[in-house]
Amino acid sequence: MEPIRAVDWAPGRTALRIIDQRLLPVTFERRDLTTADEIREAIATLAVRGAPAIGVAAAIGLAVVARHAAAAKDVGTGREAFVAAWNTAADLIAAARPTAVNLAWAVGRMRTAAARTPGSAAAVATALEAEADAVLSEDREMCAAIGNHGLGFVPDGARVLTHCNAGALATAGIGTALAPVYAAHAAGRRVSVIAGETRPLLQGGRLTAWELTRAGVPVRLVTDGMSASLMRTGEVDVVLVGADRIAANGDVVNKIGTYAVAVAARHHGIPFVVCAPSSTIDSCTPTGAGIPIEHRAADEVAAASRADSAQVAVWNPAFDLTPAALVTAIVTDRGVWAPPYSFAS
Amino acid sequence: MEPIRAVDWAPGRTALRIIDQRLLPVTFERRDLTTADEIREAIATLAVRGAPAIGVAAAIGLAVVARHAAAAKDVGTGREAFVAAWNTAADLIAAARPTAVNLAWAVGRMRTAAARTPGSAAAVATALEAEADAVLSEDREMCAAIGNHGLGFVPDGARVLTHCNAGALATAGIGTALAPVYAAHAAGRRVSVIAGETRPLLQGGRLTAWELTRAGVPVRLVTDGMSASLMRTGEVDVVLVGADRIAANGDVVNKIGTYAVAVAARHHGIPFVVCAPSSTIDSCTPTGAGIPIEHRAADEVAAASRADSAQVAVWNPAFDLTPAALVTAIVTDRGVWAPPYSFAS
Repeated sequence: MEPIRAVDWAPGRTALRIIDQRLLPVTFERRDLTTADEIREAIATLAVRGAPAIGVAAAIGLAVVARHAAAAKDVGTGREAFVAAWNTAADLIAAARPTAVNLAWAVGRMRTAAARTPGSAAAVATALEAEADAVLSEDREMCAAIGNHGLGFVPDGARVLTHCNAGALATAGIGTALAPVYAAHAAGRRVSVIAGETRPLLQGGRLTAWELTRAGVPVRLVTDGMSASLMRTGEVDVVLVGADRIAANGDVVNKIGTYAVAVAARHHGIPFVVCAPSSTIDSCTPTGAGIPIEHRAADEVAAASRADSAQVAVWNPAFDLTPAALVTAIVTDRGVWAPPYSFAS
Repeated sequence: MEPIRAVDWAPGRTALRIIDQRLLPVTFERRDLTTADEIREAIATLAVRGAPAIGVAAAIGLAVVARHAAAAKDVGTGREAFVAAWNTAADLIAAARPTAVNLAWAVGRMRTAAARTPGSAAAVATALEAEADAVLSEDREMCAAIGNHGLGFVPDGARVLTHCNAGALATAGIGTALAPVYAAHAAGRRVSVIAGETRPLLQGGRLTAWELTRAGVPVRLVTDGMSASLMRTGEVDVVLVGADRIAANGDVVNKIGTYAVAVAARHHGIPFVVCAPSSTIDSCTPTGAGIPIEHRAADEVAAASRADSAQVAVWNPAFDLTPAALVTAIVTDRGVWAPPYSFAS
């Protein structure tokens, strides 16, 4: 089966091709996006999600927008009008998810490429295509490198527990936390995964279970409260999770529920391994205590129970903090880090 | 506000009055049941749930059925025909949830009361009413006793974490795990509760949050993956949970997800206290390893994610085992037990 490509060029490079993750796991549907509005909407509504995937989507999307604008007669062939129109598109896409660091980073990189390229609109469009290509390739290589560096944690027969979705659907490549799983699977090792459903938004149940099933990796779906019991009965060999941000001391901020898994892993003597792009490491933040945690709407939690969030208080942080002391290893595209962590710049 | 009565006599003792828990938390509706069919259906469909509440519902229900039969002209006044018809009703109700130990116990107790009572149908019906009254009173007293014995774990200002629903809705009285909370609240202590939503069936979100809110006890609803983070940030003083069965060595079988909470509590040095009727202690089972765990339908887990349970394997045990070593204390109606536990008969 062909690999999952959450974000990619459409054939001929005339569009950004995405998997519409809003429809998963019920419907697997690709969409080809060509306008800034379509791309903004796809990012804002989580048709594309996952920090690396969002960055790549923005880069390819902005290259596609440039290409069509450069080819269109009505924009004019003047560089100035072309760049002005393209910058408006870049503003629009950058604002799709204001807090997504990777989105701002990718749009900024495309802006720099446009600014530094002399010549006609066509020349700028060509440079942007090359830059988007670089962003895409680097993301895939980042995933592959995490997979290779993490292979040692996934020996033949390994039973991996993961949380949320840090898989192929979150990147342009084979994912971050799931990269070592895919690498081991590709190397012919028997590997299976236990996917925590990840309340409240169920990324594990909706996305991780789907993409592993599609890739032929045996997966078992559990509620978040079940993982510890599987550890107790000896059914988990290693925990692999992603990270949204890693502090200089190795404290890890990741999807809510990650910390509970880390505590249970420690109790059972099971390695708890964080797999993330090196760009996730924030060497300017000394510890996790300095990282603000986004709190989301009460109804994301309350709705499932049909509880009245006007009556019942709800606590709904999007992320939690796992202290470095519970992290067995941090795997990035640059290698494997063991404690004590010291990423200070 | 009047107390929550999950199961009770209707005024005049002509019916079993229940709160229809299938409609909670959206609609609070009482129902008065008078026929064996209605009572069976209420138990089978979880309109009444919680082991103690089911037992009381069966006892009151069978008394009500007997009363109406004894008063009816068409059954005849002969004791034999009356008891035969009543036994058929008892069979029907006992089969509503075949694995509910408390249901079988309560029906058996009513059968014994019928069998040992001489005289007319009316005499038997009167005896059954008295027996149901005893079952009801004992259940309320059991709850109150757990509340009193557990008061020491809920000092003024206590922030209690609980899982599932072992509250008033699960009993005829003030609950088991929540009994010390209600007792502390009644004693004027400030007490607040964090309710884990308890996937997959969300008893915490649907029932615990509702009943505490109604009783005026501040409650905060969280997903099961959030509890550990609240422990880390010092927002939990004690964990109170119920039990479905306790082995002779103190191993506790309770709702799935309980073990994860116990592990997190131990990691953070927070007392993990099990509150349950003394009838929950199974002194003939040496350890929890001997207790079979019911596994339920995959779709209970998969449906929330809309995952295809024909493609994705699901693990859905209804209960988990918490080893006695993680249990700080066991509070029953007979007192407080500290480790090492030894309930062997």
